Amino acid sequence: MHHHFVPTQYYRTIGTHPAALVISVDDTVTVECVDAHGIDRNNAQITPSGNPMSGPIHVRGLTPDDVIAITFMSIEPIRNHGWSYPTLAGNVVDPEYITAVPYAPGSALPKEYWDYDRANNTVISRGTHGRSLTLPYAPMVGCFGVAPARGEAISTATSGRYGGNMDYKHFTTGCTIYLPVAVDGALFHIGDGHLVQGCGEIGGTGVESAIAVTCAFAKAPMQRITWPRAEDDTYLYTVGNARPLDQALQHATSEMHRWLVECGADAITAAVLMSQAIEYDIGNVFDPAYTVACKIKKSLLDAHQLRSTFRA
Amino acid sequence: MHHHFVPTQYYRTIGTHPAALVISVDDTVTVECVDAHGIDRNNAQITPSGNPMSGPIHVRGLTPDDVIAITFMSIEPIRNHGWSYPTLAGNVVDPEYITAVPYAPGSALPKEYWDYDRANNTVISRGTHGRSLTLPYAPMVGCFGVAPARGEAISTATSGRYGGNMDYKHFTTGCTIYLPVAVDGALFHIGDGHLVQGCGEIGGTGVESAIAVTCAFAKAPMQRITWPRAEDDTYLYTVGNARPLDQALQHATSEMHRWLVECGADAITAAVLMSQAIEYDIGNVFDPAYTVACKIKKSLLDAHQLRSTFRA
Amino acid sequence: MHHHFVPTQYYRTIGTHPAALVISVDDTVTVECVDAHGIDRNNAQITPSGNPMSGPIHVRGLTPDDVIAITFMSIEPIRNHGWSYPTLAGNVVDPEYITAVPYAPGSALPKEYWDYDRANNTVISRGTHGRSLTLPYAPMVGCFGVAPARGEAISTATSGRYGGNMDYKHFTTGCTIYLPVAVDGALFHIGDGHLVQGCGEIGGTGVESAIAVTCAFAKAPMQRITWPRAEDDTYLYTVGNARPLDQALQHATSEMHRWLVECGADAITAAVLMSQAIEYDIGNVFDPAYTVACKIKKSLLDAHQLRSTFRA
Amino acid sequence: MHHHFVPTQYYRTIGTHPAALVISVDDTVTVECVDAHGIDRNNAQITPSGNPMSGPIHVRGLTPDDVIAITFMSIEPIRNHGWSYPTLAGNVVDPEYITAVPYAPGSALPKEYWDYDRANNTVISRGTHGRSLTLPYAPMVGCFGVAPARGEAISTATSGRYGGNMDYKHFTTGCTIYLPVAVDGALFHIGDGHLVQGCGEIGGTGVESAIAVTCAFAKAPMQRITWPRAEDDTYLYTVGNARPLDQALQHATSEMHRWLVECGADAITAAVLMSQAIEYDIGNVFDPAYTVACKIKKSLLDAHQLRSTFRA
Repeated sequence: MHHHFVPTQYYRTIGTHPAALVISVDDTVTVECVDAHGIDRNNAQITPSGNPMSGPIHVRGLTPDDVIAITFMSIEPIRNHGWSYPTLAGNVVDPEYITAVPYAPGSALPKEYWDYDRANNTVISRGTHGRSLTLPYAPMVGCFGVAPARGEAISTATSGRYGGNMDYKHFTTGCTIYLPVAVDGALFHIGDGHLVQGCGEIGGTGVESAIAVTCAFAKAPMQRITWPRAEDDTYLYTVGNARPLDQALQHATSEMHRWLVECGADAITAAVLMSQAIEYDIGNVFDPAYTVACKIKKSLLDAHQLRSTFRA
Repeated sequence: MHHHFVPTQYYRTIGTHPAALVISVDDTVTVECVDAHGIDRNNAQITPSGNPMSGPIHVRGLTPDDVIAITFMSIEPIRNHGWSYPTLAGNVVDPEYITAVPYAPGSALPKEYWDYDRANNTVISRGTHGRSLTLPYAPMVGCFGVAPARGEAISTATSGRYGGNMDYKHFTTGCTIYLPVAVDGALFHIGDGHLVQGCGEIGGTGVESAIAVTCAFAKAPMQRITWPRAEDDTYLYTVGNARPLDQALQHATSEMHRWLVECGADAITAAVLMSQAIEYDIGNVFDPAYTVACKIKKSLLDAHQLRSTFRA
Repeated sequence: MHHHFVPTQYYRTIGTHPAALVISVDDTVTVECVDAHGIDRNNAQITPSGNPMSGPIHVRGLTPDDVIAITFMSIEPIRNHGWSYPTLAGNVVDPEYITAVPYAPGSALPKEYWDYDRANNTVISRGTHGRSLTLPYAPMVGCFGVAPARGEAISTATSGRYGGNMDYKHFTTGCTIYLPVAVDGALFHIGDGHLVQGCGEIGGTGVESAIAVTCAFAKAPMQRITWPRAEDDTYLYTVGNARPLDQALQHATSEMHRWLVECGADAITAAVLMSQAIEYDIGNVFDPAYTVACKIKKSLLDAHQLRSTFRA
Repeated sequence: MHHHFVPTQYYRTIGTHPAALVISVDDTVTVECVDAHGIDRNNAQITPSGNPMSGPIHVRGLTPDDVIAITFMSIEPIRNHGWSYPTLAGNVVDPEYITAVPYAPGSALPKEYWDYDRANNTVISRGTHGRSLTLPYAPMVGCFGVAPARGEAISTATSGRYGGNMDYKHFTTGCTIYLPVAVDGALFHIGDGHLVQGCGEIGGTGVESAIAVTCAFAKAPMQRITWPRAEDDTYLYTVGNARPLDQALQHATSEMHRWLVECGADAITAAVLMSQAIEYDIGNVFDPAYTVACKIKKSLLDAHQLRSTFRA
């Protein structure tokens, strides 16, 4: 069954909030999301700023220690423009370079607006701050997750085992993400759409827009997982969220080794393969928790008779 | 002029050692390098283990505050096999996962040998430790650099502004690397060849082999740089070496902003572009200093009338 | 007015939970707290493990951006023993040393019990794990805080601007702590008593016991603060909670500079004084967020005509 | 035998330089040191700035894997004033607070001069930058160490296993420091005297002066150590040097556990004792490598029949 979900209320924490939509596992949902400032498809701010989430969506049949699979079937902007900040965050440059960055930390930040050129598949900045730039359109979802364990309700400014504000550009159309379920129904939250974003979200924003995301849900054929996992047509991914990056990388690396063992590798083979074939990406390096993804090509798993997909 | 350089002495620090070869800027040199354990083309250990370097090569005409450009014209193995350790380093997994990794830290580590299959362009592990794996051949240089400032002589187990053990897989054939010259003649050192390596060198080794690297040298058309830079056909790169990764990323990000301004962007445009278009890679996460690369596509610079190459 | 508060319900998050006790500002309260495992004065586990909190206490008249002052007037154990784990946490030793530590991460951890010898003012371990040790009795409160902003409910396993599981041994009898109020009534939570604890809580526990803490409350004469502050007879303290320690130290150092300016120093004098007179302590280094305290002697402030107390 | 050593040459790296003085183990030496800027007792700059070292002193009879003991018998200023920078370093405050600090990173830094008042045992700033401050005189040695292994020569701006620029205020008169010997004769270097310094050296300087340090040397009754150790009348200390602080703390904590086992504790008792009795201090947090000390009271070791001194 397909649902079209337009929230009447938004949350700035991911937690055990009352379900706004109850669906069956294997349903699909198109979710409308305001932008990071709570600004909607009509350019009206309808809820306070700070990554307001659509949801939670209760997925019937999912219980703690299950793993939820969310596939992004499409991500569509629901207005024709986005915006970004024309700066670099204080924490991503050397302390002695901060004063060389435009709009030093603490300054009031103006917005640079970008227009979505659907015909050419690009986004084009208006050049109010710096010159006009044209970049390939590459939509993604910055923040999504399920209710964390222990009754926590965690700000959508950060991330953890449950997902959150990871700002990882490979979380885009065609990607299936696996998250550990901590409460009945999982309670999925989503928002913070970007029309494009560099790695790290180092200015504090992507090109922020209101979006509609069509998601398919499933119960993943996995035992309890510790950190988020994902797959697309090319890669398996594991994701760690922590600060410093070193710790996020430790989480992602440990989770990949666990996963490869589940894929059929013995512990030694998994270590040898990872040493010579793994790749890392950096997600958000702006938030309290940073994001590191560890990825491995599915083709390498196939070539060695290891399981390479967990999709239905 | 072309030189073929086979060292008679190796160094395990990068420093102001006596020049082993003196060349003119714009000369090319084929340098033979033993592997990380000091084992040569004939499988004989001819010098102590620990990333022994070939060099230093004195490049006439380079003086402090110049920038040296080194282009890897070819990287060829000079024996038909390499080896790797079948483990993951203690610092790349969660502390509580260390005991689940094969050959826990402190254990004696056996070597897994790999054969180079030139016909198929692959490397194939022998399966002594875990099952046999076949990976694409992707040679790279793990460690190279120029004498650091202040008379320092720094272990080839680590890295810094002068280069060093960065283990970054895009430092391969076709890449031009820019390093800050601190002493007359630059004093270039090179070694630690890998037939393939995953990002991070997370098991402590790539597939270690003896190699011959053909390098072209030049004086780069740049003012004094702070951190290594590089370019290949697709990207401009900046590289930070430090721990934690957060600081390495700060170095690389600051250096990229400085470079884009030199490419013709104003400071605001550079910040906007970086926020939405930068990518990060992770080099070595095994050494005392970790390596982060920041990269941007040359095609984006070309599209916006920014300088995109500094090659001769 | 004095209250004696024995909870009927405990929370393992610090958040905007329903008030369990409503008091006036300037009231005092004796709060009974179970230990970190939810074990009470009668050695019965009455609530799930994981730093269960007594509270929240609603302090009438405190509103967002106020600063609450909590003075620990007394900390008394309400049973005659405590317990600790006979290990060191995986994250406080070198990765290659983890296997040398007793009860490596992931092992089932036995408890070592300690008896409180009131006559001699000591705690004495029973020697079930290792030999019997006798240490000076030095009670402290490991975890306390006020509801965070934005509707967050944060696990008592960690800490932040609102307080939390800081495990700082100078948070003991005679200390006044200042926390930023984010919700009406502040909503104070407290628990996790220790009969003694080394810096860092590096084994994951102090000597854990059920305690009764007598607290005095007040509205502090301060504008909005960013991080916790405290004072006792000897020192002013500022506290940062984050990982890595470097960031916790940045928070604490920035907050101290802000505070010294409020004490009457100009910004330059505050910097000169801090450079030559500050001290740092390390609180918890076991949790997701670590704790660093920055402190300065009140006598130095007095000697230079700077304000040195904010007590009523 | 006693020596009085006034260098004719200074080094800004700690490495295997030619011995400037050769002594017998058990000799004592009074070493004159210029300040961090190379300024001598007569206020003349006689060597380039950057922590120039007096030495190296070759101690006959010490060979690799021995442990050298250096006792600071006295530290005397050899001029009547010192200087400090009136700022806080960019890396010790929050990125968004950097612009609030006087003399932001990159600015030209003026010097604030301090006079040594021998009669009152204080140092008094002249109030050129901010108001005049009077602090207790507390001299210490900022930088000292022995030649590192592998032929490294490491800048005196940083630190490592061999010692270096640790800026730890308990390295003062009465302290005996133990360092791992890597080369014949140890090759001891020393300099960077401070008349007083806050923890962390967070402005980048203590009160910098030229000093004369009288040192006693000995071969310590210890097997090979991994990180520096020390003792004074009250404490045993272990010291880790690395970035981030988390890693420095791991080094210091591991070394303390090793040492307590050498003192007679079994591994479990050492862990229990450390958990409940250890203290941490923070040394330098300005340099490339940061310094953390772990310390434990000798009285606790004595009370439990553990060895508490390694002095001759």
